[in-house]
Amino acid sequence: MTDAIREIIAAIAPADESLRESAQARLDDLTKPRGSLGRLEEVALRLAMLQKGEPTADPARIIVAAGDHGVAAEGVSAFPQEVTRQMVLNFLAGGAGVNVLAKVAGVGMRVVDAGVAGKPFAEHPLLERGRVASGTANMTEGPAMRPEECEAAVLLGARMARQAAADGVRALATGDMGIANTTPSAALYCAMLGLSPEEVVGPGTGLDHAGVRRKVLVVEKALAANWTAVAGESDLRSGEPTPEELFLLDNDGPENPFMALAALGGLEIACLAGVILGGASAGLPVVVDGYISVAAYCAAWRMCPAVADWCFFSHLSAEPGHQKIMRRLDQKPLLDLGMRLGEGTGAALALVVLRGAAAIYNEMATFSGAGVSR
Amino acid sequence: MTDAIREIIAAIAPADESLRESAQARLDDLTKPRGSLGRLEEVALRLAMLQKGEPTADPARIIVAAGDHGVAAEGVSAFPQEVTRQMVLNFLAGGAGVNVLAKVAGVGMRVVDAGVAGKPFAEHPLLERGRVASGTANMTEGPAMRPEECEAAVLLGARMARQAAADGVRALATGDMGIANTTPSAALYCAMLGLSPEEVVGPGTGLDHAGVRRKVLVVEKALAANWTAVAGESDLRSGEPTPEELFLLDNDGPENPFMALAALGGLEIACLAGVILGGASAGLPVVVDGYISVAAYCAAWRMCPAVADWCFFSHLSAEPGHQKIMRRLDQKPLLDLGMRLGEGTGAALALVVLRGAAAIYNEMATFSGAGVSR
Repeated sequence: MTDAIREIIAAIAPADESLRESAQARLDDLTKPRGSLGRLEEVALRLAMLQKGEPTADPARIIVAAGDHGVAAEGVSAFPQEVTRQMVLNFLAGGAGVNVLAKVAGVGMRVVDAGVAGKPFAEHPLLERGRVASGTANMTEGPAMRPEECEAAVLLGARMARQAAADGVRALATGDMGIANTTPSAALYCAMLGLSPEEVVGPGTGLDHAGVRRKVLVVEKALAANWTAVAGESDLRSGEPTPEELFLLDNDGPENPFMALAALGGLEIACLAGVILGGASAGLPVVVDGYISVAAYCAAWRMCPAVADWCFFSHLSAEPGHQKIMRRLDQKPLLDLGMRLGEGTGAALALVVLRGAAAIYNEMATFSGAGVSR
Repeated sequence: MTDAIREIIAAIAPADESLRESAQARLDDLTKPRGSLGRLEEVALRLAMLQKGEPTADPARIIVAAGDHGVAAEGVSAFPQEVTRQMVLNFLAGGAGVNVLAKVAGVGMRVVDAGVAGKPFAEHPLLERGRVASGTANMTEGPAMRPEECEAAVLLGARMARQAAADGVRALATGDMGIANTTPSAALYCAMLGLSPEEVVGPGTGLDHAGVRRKVLVVEKALAANWTAVAGESDLRSGEPTPEELFLLDNDGPENPFMALAALGGLEIACLAGVILGGASAGLPVVVDGYISVAAYCAAWRMCPAVADWCFFSHLSAEPGHQKIMRRLDQKPLLDLGMRLGEGTGAALALVVLRGAAAIYNEMATFSGAGVSR
């Protein structure tokens, strides 16, 4: 890891606590019982503290990062790897779930090829041709990415976030596409949060029970194969560490989580970690989509805990481990609609909640202004 | 109860089960793993079966019904009664929570004075001046409404629903305003669902613990005062019926629930029951707001169980009893944002979920069309 990522992290400020009291006072003066708009008020308060003025979620942009995974060779997905590429083309043609829901939500969208296997895509106005590699290596045999690949993917995402800010975007959202990517995400949850493979592995796009069991073994194998690569020989404890102990490294800097991201992540996941870090450093709140995006969040958060202030969790994924992950993060997602598609579909809908939160803060009448008794 | 309400009920058809298979097949052919859009797919399926063609939630209209309550004299609200009138004026001026969230959701809105205390409102393009009476009577002393008043309020709501259909509206939503109206709503939950006052009474706009305790006693008193009025002397069982037994009447028609609505409801609540019945009879799905609107739903549903097909529950209210009520109804609301404002604010946001559901059904690419492998 070079200084480029450290500089981005150094630019991330927490929410401005000095604004809390005045923002709360404004919310309490609006024509409603105190707190009666629940989480909309909580979101509005945080946006006001982050954006240091009128909170807003518009214009918003969803960045959908795509990449392929060497671990797909282990048979951990119900879909073949070529679907990653096919779905990128579907995004560009406007036919995927995220296209439709981004339109419903009135949100812009960019697709980034962070590392789809095969030949590069043709140019397209929606597409950032950022590919770092033609997919990752199989993480059951060693690191999924070399550190320089991982860093390039993180910087790619950070660059897209900064470009959004330069384009006048005021809120970001994450989305993902990558066949097999619930498997590296599960491995990252083990490494970043100390959860066990059994706790976080689920059926993804549609594995049966035997498939889920095989996926647990694949994650265990990946954790074991990458333990020394991440922690270094000197950190090896005596005895057999359990998988959840493997990566729970004490660290006071971003180096270890970065190495875990490289070993166990994916190019699109590293890119989304970069979107989160880059968004926060550019002053943009980031709406985090579902199971894959939250794995990217975990990497970014372990590298820089202050990103927690900048991130809003869009929805609880139907992937079974997600609830436990959210509890471990002490976060409650905004929506719970049983969704498990990824792509940014949950983030698109949640952006409407942010928009509503900003609108009540900015547009509702006050008790005195409307002549309503308290 | 006259034949006018019976005719509306007779016109309500359940969802068309013959369309389920083809609608499900369409959802399963869209470029996503089966079922991966969760509740969006469930909503889309039901809309397709109700609307017999391309599902849609647009254009949508929120009908916000306002009324006052004699039981406010019992000190069951944190706000004075004149706030009902002040908030209607706030609605008309565009400054209330529902105005802001309806705008965010891209939804139209009509306000109806079903029975606000005091003098009639001046004409206003957003306002239906439908007032049936100047508030209700104090239900702790006898029926809140005479049957003819309750019927007029139901028919007022049904007329507004039919007018919406005539205006080209394709989906309705309910909203309420009425200081003290969590109290009649709680009484209706006892009568319609067999829940106890302790289970359903909560702080409303902000009662303290002692206030909630007093409100429970008020609901118990109202149930006792209206038992014979609703059930008739002949139905009185021997011994002391518990409050939850009082109104759990066997009935094979709408008469008893209607009488309970008159005795324990409110003019705006009866009006919203009419919106639900009238909407369903006119072929319009109805998004039901929170604690008050669901009480209106319970009355409509007890009068005509087929309205269940036409109704979508927008959000789980922060009013503590609402979760138990939803479980009793075997319904899971779409959103859970800790809101407890009413006015239709939760319904406005939920309409975006319906819009998203309709859009994925209508606009997503199919596997074959997009060349995506299954």
